[in-house]
Amino acid sequence: MTEAPSGHTSAVHLLDQWFPVCTARELRGRPIARVLQGVPLALFRDAGGAPAALQDRCPHRNAPLSLGRRAGDHLECAYHGWRFARGGACVAVPGLAEPGGLPGSGGAPGRAAVAHAAVEQDGLVWVFSTAGAAPAGPPPFRFPHLADARYTTVRHAQRMRGTVLAAVENALDVPHTAFLHGGLFRTPRRRSVVEVIVRRGADRVEAEYVGEPRPAGLLGRLLAPGGGTVEHHDRFLLPCLAQVEYRLGAGSHLVVTTAFTPVSGDEVHLFTAVSFRLPLPGVLVRPFVAPLALRVLAQDAHMLAAQAENVSRFGGERFASTELDVLGPHVGHLLRRAARGEPGEPFEPMTRRMEV
Amino acid sequence: MTEAPSGHTSAVHLLDQWFPVCTARELRGRPIARVLQGVPLALFRDAGGAPAALQDRCPHRNAPLSLGRRAGDHLECAYHGWRFARGGACVAVPGLAEPGGLPGSGGAPGRAAVAHAAVEQDGLVWVFSTAGAAPAGPPPFRFPHLADARYTTVRHAQRMRGTVLAAVENALDVPHTAFLHGGLFRTPRRRSVVEVIVRRGADRVEAEYVGEPRPAGLLGRLLAPGGGTVEHHDRFLLPCLAQVEYRLGAGSHLVVTTAFTPVSGDEVHLFTAVSFRLPLPGVLVRPFVAPLALRVLAQDAHMLAAQAENVSRFGGERFASTELDVLGPHVGHLLRRAARGEPGEPFEPMTRRMEV
Amino acid sequence: MTEAPSGHTSAVHLLDQWFPVCTARELRGRPIARVLQGVPLALFRDAGGAPAALQDRCPHRNAPLSLGRRAGDHLECAYHGWRFARGGACVAVPGLAEPGGLPGSGGAPGRAAVAHAAVEQDGLVWVFSTAGAAPAGPPPFRFPHLADARYTTVRHAQRMRGTVLAAVENALDVPHTAFLHGGLFRTPRRRSVVEVIVRRGADRVEAEYVGEPRPAGLLGRLLAPGGGTVEHHDRFLLPCLAQVEYRLGAGSHLVVTTAFTPVSGDEVHLFTAVSFRLPLPGVLVRPFVAPLALRVLAQDAHMLAAQAENVSRFGGERFASTELDVLGPHVGHLLRRAARGEPGEPFEPMTRRMEV
Repeated sequence: MTEAPSGHTSAVHLLDQWFPVCTARELRGRPIARVLQGVPLALFRDAGGAPAALQDRCPHRNAPLSLGRRAGDHLECAYHGWRFARGGACVAVPGLAEPGGLPGSGGAPGRAAVAHAAVEQDGLVWVFSTAGAAPAGPPPFRFPHLADARYTTVRHAQRMRGTVLAAVENALDVPHTAFLHGGLFRTPRRRSVVEVIVRRGADRVEAEYVGEPRPAGLLGRLLAPGGGTVEHHDRFLLPCLAQVEYRLGAGSHLVVTTAFTPVSGDEVHLFTAVSFRLPLPGVLVRPFVAPLALRVLAQDAHMLAAQAENVSRFGGERFASTELDVLGPHVGHLLRRAARGEPGEPFEPMTRRMEV
Repeated sequence: MTEAPSGHTSAVHLLDQWFPVCTARELRGRPIARVLQGVPLALFRDAGGAPAALQDRCPHRNAPLSLGRRAGDHLECAYHGWRFARGGACVAVPGLAEPGGLPGSGGAPGRAAVAHAAVEQDGLVWVFSTAGAAPAGPPPFRFPHLADARYTTVRHAQRMRGTVLAAVENALDVPHTAFLHGGLFRTPRRRSVVEVIVRRGADRVEAEYVGEPRPAGLLGRLLAPGGGTVEHHDRFLLPCLAQVEYRLGAGSHLVVTTAFTPVSGDEVHLFTAVSFRLPLPGVLVRPFVAPLALRVLAQDAHMLAAQAENVSRFGGERFASTELDVLGPHVGHLLRRAARGEPGEPFEPMTRRMEV
Repeated sequence: MTEAPSGHTSAVHLLDQWFPVCTARELRGRPIARVLQGVPLALFRDAGGAPAALQDRCPHRNAPLSLGRRAGDHLECAYHGWRFARGGACVAVPGLAEPGGLPGSGGAPGRAAVAHAAVEQDGLVWVFSTAGAAPAGPPPFRFPHLADARYTTVRHAQRMRGTVLAAVENALDVPHTAFLHGGLFRTPRRRSVVEVIVRRGADRVEAEYVGEPRPAGLLGRLLAPGGGTVEHHDRFLLPCLAQVEYRLGAGSHLVVTTAFTPVSGDEVHLFTAVSFRLPLPGVLVRPFVAPLALRVLAQDAHMLAAQAENVSRFGGERFASTELDVLGPHVGHLLRRAARGEPGEPFEPMTRRMEV
């Protein structure tokens, strides 16, 4: 049972992390605007097609660079035509007759835009959360099974209100499915007690559900037409990935992976991939996955928005947790440690019992 | 002549008082949301139909309880299904396999919602403004004549911008009627000087108008078809009741009673009952009362909103009063004393003269 | 190259200055509301038709006076009918039976509204920015050529987001025209180097462009059908006037004069007069001027709004200037000095070279 003081927020600011900010298809010929952890960004592609990210403010008169246009390798501001390279250097100030030609990045550092590292991977554009830094550490997270021909994958992206913690906890939380998504997954009437083993490492936490019966509803029927006991894992990986995995023997495997990008302190942009291998052919199942996922996400988004609005009007978070909040408190621990630049403290695996 | 410093507001916060928050008809099978003095409330009815009020925040993850549903005697949160009794006790956490069964109110006080006392009376749901308190002191105000067969009553409820003081003063103010409601009540052309006697007690203030001619316009014709001199009293009663009473001999009697509920510092919810006994049959008069009252209220609401908005953009109230502001300054005095938990200071009745 | 700290704004508050707040035609029989440097005003005309300006707050209950009506020489509040003279004096409180008749301005200063001096000139209503002051110093600025029969004048007024500095700099800035208004004035392809001489005085700054070819596009063709070299001056005059002047020999003369009135810290109301004398008859040119000016203003307004919004979300201005920012930094200097009540510091004329 924990209580936070009034005014408390679980929102954190994470440095030196890769976050997806848009899909690769959203970024084409024209620059687009996105926001990462409160920082407005102008995204564009250089002449080779590689994505680039500048803070969305021209150093000249602070016009949004995202209103500009791509000019060869550069982003050109719509107001006075200043041009910037992917690293931020100002490479042209139209009309300026300077000795020695146009100013380079070395010559006029005060004219440079602020740049963030950016890469394209797994169909998403990822931006490094610390400006100007050459990213050390691991590359962006790889979504599993995208290149495995045995798997079918359905992708989706959308914005939601709420802190990253609230959204991640929601994605990994089992008990709410019977109420918020009643009928889609589970119903309050059929209940059984299962064991949950929680394992936490320096950058992740995982819950393994032992002895869980096949989920009721449409999801269960797709996953395990013949019934049976499923293997079910829920995971969180820093900085902001949530994964729900169901496996039934060798024939059925479903992994829902979602990257949560903090847009601001109470808005997230989520990028989901649902990958599955089932007894039924993927082409038959696929038409059911998107409508189901969209309905679940719409219900979650509605509740998360109501929660965020309520937290705002009550002046802060004040949460009471029970043993059923299997992963949320661990996710909060990992996020708070990461915000301070410290690894999460591992602890001995613990086992709990709950009704599902 | 008084002037308040910049930033001043007449808004007050009153503890230990009953306020109506909705009509009895608005609260049926589903919970509804209301706000009392800035505190969001979830209202529901228990199995016996009695109204109950919980602060609109689930102690678990702060979802609004008003999005939930009634489950027997309890309110069930829409997010994870936690259930709460009318006193706030958490009576169920679905999925929690606790030794000794489900937690009771004694076992897990940190899981309790915050409750306010609530009762139904005179067709309204009244909530006590102090959380968790067993209401001492008097019960909610009784609207007069509701059960008297000789009277016809027309009810109305609506929200308005403005502080309680601004709204109450408006309701009891005579001079504005010639301007804001010109033609409906009085016109600036016909004037006569009357005496006003003001009497103030510990919890109320009353103005008696002596020698006032029959009001001009439609109201006057309904009230006193034959003309004559009316008895006219305007009253304020703590916490937030305003009453305008006209009497003409034994045959005509009109009482307009309004309870003003502070929603926030600059919004009120008003609940009005117009009760009358006239020479004409009530069924003939009734069709004229609602349109007239609604037109007056619309004009008042428009002006109060403009006043509140203007106070906001000028950064506070700065009022200059004259002797014509018969009751407003006394209402302000009583509200400020009540906000400090002190009774109003009675004073000797005073007599003034004004043109109406 | 200058950089301002985060949170910086170029918005200033100027005392003892005349600003136009509406056109003469906008102020007729009914009072209207305008805002000058954050101060809400109620404008009305007295019995003689002269404009008057009171702060838009009745001293009684703070209702907006602009909701009232003109009553002879006075403005009557819509709430309780208090009446005010153009100097602010309360001349009537309806219903108040005071010894010695109605209160005059001397008798009840606490009942007076706050007045600003106001005059009508050149088709605009000008208000003095300091309340209660008898304006010393020069009268409002005179728009040139309005009474000269050889000139045709097109008038326009509109609101824009942005500080006065941002809007004035935009109006006097040459380099942005090739980008924001590409095709209308100039195109990036045709370039030539010109000399710019900048002269600054105590209350003004001027840029003279030497050797500038005829502007490309429609404007150039209207101004100088036969080509040639134009005389081009751009000027700023305190408090807030921008002037762009083109002359081609004795036959062609175009002056665009704009008064910028600060509505708030990031909104301006601009009043423009385009006066011209051209080889073509004015009646032939006139139909082209308004559409062209409106298109330019719409593009500028869009960019200024984006700039203001971006400055807001980044928490302040942070501008990097080059030699091409010919007048903006001087305008900022003059505005900051004026805000402190000090004259601008003159300096030696300086010459720069730029491509246009």
